[in-house]
Amino acid sequence: MSRPDGVGIQGRVSRYRVYWEDTDAGGVVYHSRYLNFMERARSDWLLDLGYPQVDLRQRHGCLFVVTSVTVNFLAPARLEDELAVSVTVEALRAASMSMAQQVWRGDGRLLVAGQVAIACLDAGSFRPTRMPPALRAAIKDFQGN
Amino acid sequence: MSRPDGVGIQGRVSRYRVYWEDTDAGGVVYHSRYLNFMERARSDWLLDLGYPQVDLRQRHGCLFVVTSVTVNFLAPARLEDELAVSVTVEALRAASMSMAQQVWRGDGRLLVAGQVAIACLDAGSFRPTRMPPALRAAIKDFQGN
Amino acid sequence: MSRPDGVGIQGRVSRYRVYWEDTDAGGVVYHSRYLNFMERARSDWLLDLGYPQVDLRQRHGCLFVVTSVTVNFLAPARLEDELAVSVTVEALRAASMSMAQQVWRGDGRLLVAGQVAIACLDAGSFRPTRMPPALRAAIKDFQGN
Amino acid sequence: MSRPDGVGIQGRVSRYRVYWEDTDAGGVVYHSRYLNFMERARSDWLLDLGYPQVDLRQRHGCLFVVTSVTVNFLAPARLEDELAVSVTVEALRAASMSMAQQVWRGDGRLLVAGQVAIACLDAGSFRPTRMPPALRAAIKDFQGN
Repeated sequence: MSRPDGVGIQGRVSRYRVYWEDTDAGGVVYHSRYLNFMERARSDWLLDLGYPQVDLRQRHGCLFVVTSVTVNFLAPARLEDELAVSVTVEALRAASMSMAQQVWRGDGRLLVAGQVAIACLDAGSFRPTRMPPALRAAIKDFQGN
Repeated sequence: MSRPDGVGIQGRVSRYRVYWEDTDAGGVVYHSRYLNFMERARSDWLLDLGYPQVDLRQRHGCLFVVTSVTVNFLAPARLEDELAVSVTVEALRAASMSMAQQVWRGDGRLLVAGQVAIACLDAGSFRPTRMPPALRAAIKDFQGN
Repeated sequence: MSRPDGVGIQGRVSRYRVYWEDTDAGGVVYHSRYLNFMERARSDWLLDLGYPQVDLRQRHGCLFVVTSVTVNFLAPARLEDELAVSVTVEALRAASMSMAQQVWRGDGRLLVAGQVAIACLDAGSFRPTRMPPALRAAIKDFQGN
Repeated sequence: MSRPDGVGIQGRVSRYRVYWEDTDAGGVVYHSRYLNFMERARSDWLLDLGYPQVDLRQRHGCLFVVTSVTVNFLAPARLEDELAVSVTVEALRAASMSMAQQVWRGDGRLLVAGQVAIACLDAGSFRPTRMPPALRAAIKDFQGN
């Protein structure tokens, strides 16, 4: 996907349609739903890397949680829009990472831009724990592209 | 609460306001959200009976799930409406119960009427299991009122 | 898609993945979310028929609302499951229709079966109104297949 | 409400219970739902000030939208927790304001801390517009307390 001005979206992109459930009485997508779309894109990215989160929990005993977000809502999405949601890893540490994510409309308009901090937690104690080394290597590879 | 025609609401009533998150681009409450309001009313009813569901799970190893619903959507709720949601137990069995629930608007208009079938499941196996006897007795008492 | 017993899914099928937002602390999909998945499948079906609901409202002044549902929850979906959601039109009238919808898991297990009654309303008055004739013809065609 | 260390919550506080719909398969509240709780608290605050948002739109032709958020998720809420959500206005301008909001658990633990930027938009054009003067005065009063 590229914008009319030729600037392409950075990172991995997933596409999701806006349904009635995502909208509110203002006629546009309810603001917190963009965080849901961003989380879907991170989940689909992990699936692509070969790390379903169900396995992460059952086999590796860990899960990812959002520790902070900064999100700018620039323009609204509406019913039936098809959204492109990007994932870029900006910083990768042993037990956490920082990601940039953007939500674009089909016509190339940037709607939402966010920074998301993610921690890897032990599924039992909810304390920070190192990511599985092979997953960390896969994310490093993804960063390099 | 009673309707203009003098017919009162049956059963236990909880009140919840409609927020932006509950509405959709049609300007009214999104249909499936009424099931959420109905679930809140059942949860608040169990709290009132002295059976928080966190305890039910941790101490008794069981949880309640919805096995079927029939819901009639009669009139729409809108932003900032205050809803009254009723709970009545129609049939109580060892491992399940049938409930009637209604959603009313503040002005006494009936918006939604539903039947909900609930099963008590073992939290580990997700198989039907008997309710804790004291809870079952408390529900029987509630029915009698 | 067909079940192990060789019975195929009836009607049009859409596929949606289960994300964290769809699940609850019971470890499974929250019951009312299946109604959201069913609504997505109806919306995607209308798009396929050439009737985006944004156009329906802006050009024809009407919208579809759910007037009643009966839903049986047979087995739970979990995080990352891919769901197949079917749409079948059972009865088509001038201003309403009745649909059967099912939600299947990727391995062919039937999870949810529902009946949904839909009314076509005037977008301004929220009163029943006839569907646009061409849409009604398109739905009749769909029924015939 | 005050914390065990004697530090009180700043600003206006609303209380909301956590229901099944708010939780996810990690056993805790889904991260974006805290933004919903924060929006409920802002809506209830506007109601308290005497400015229902339905009136704001119908009589004054304007609505409030979130233009950016920064949210830190410090500790998780769980099923049946009662949350206290605070609203403080940090900066008030003609067509926008900045707010600090926090989400506390019943035992005085701070769970979530956020900054929210709000714009007042014309309900038709979605362009920035001045808040109604009397509302702006009421917010200034609230700030002074």
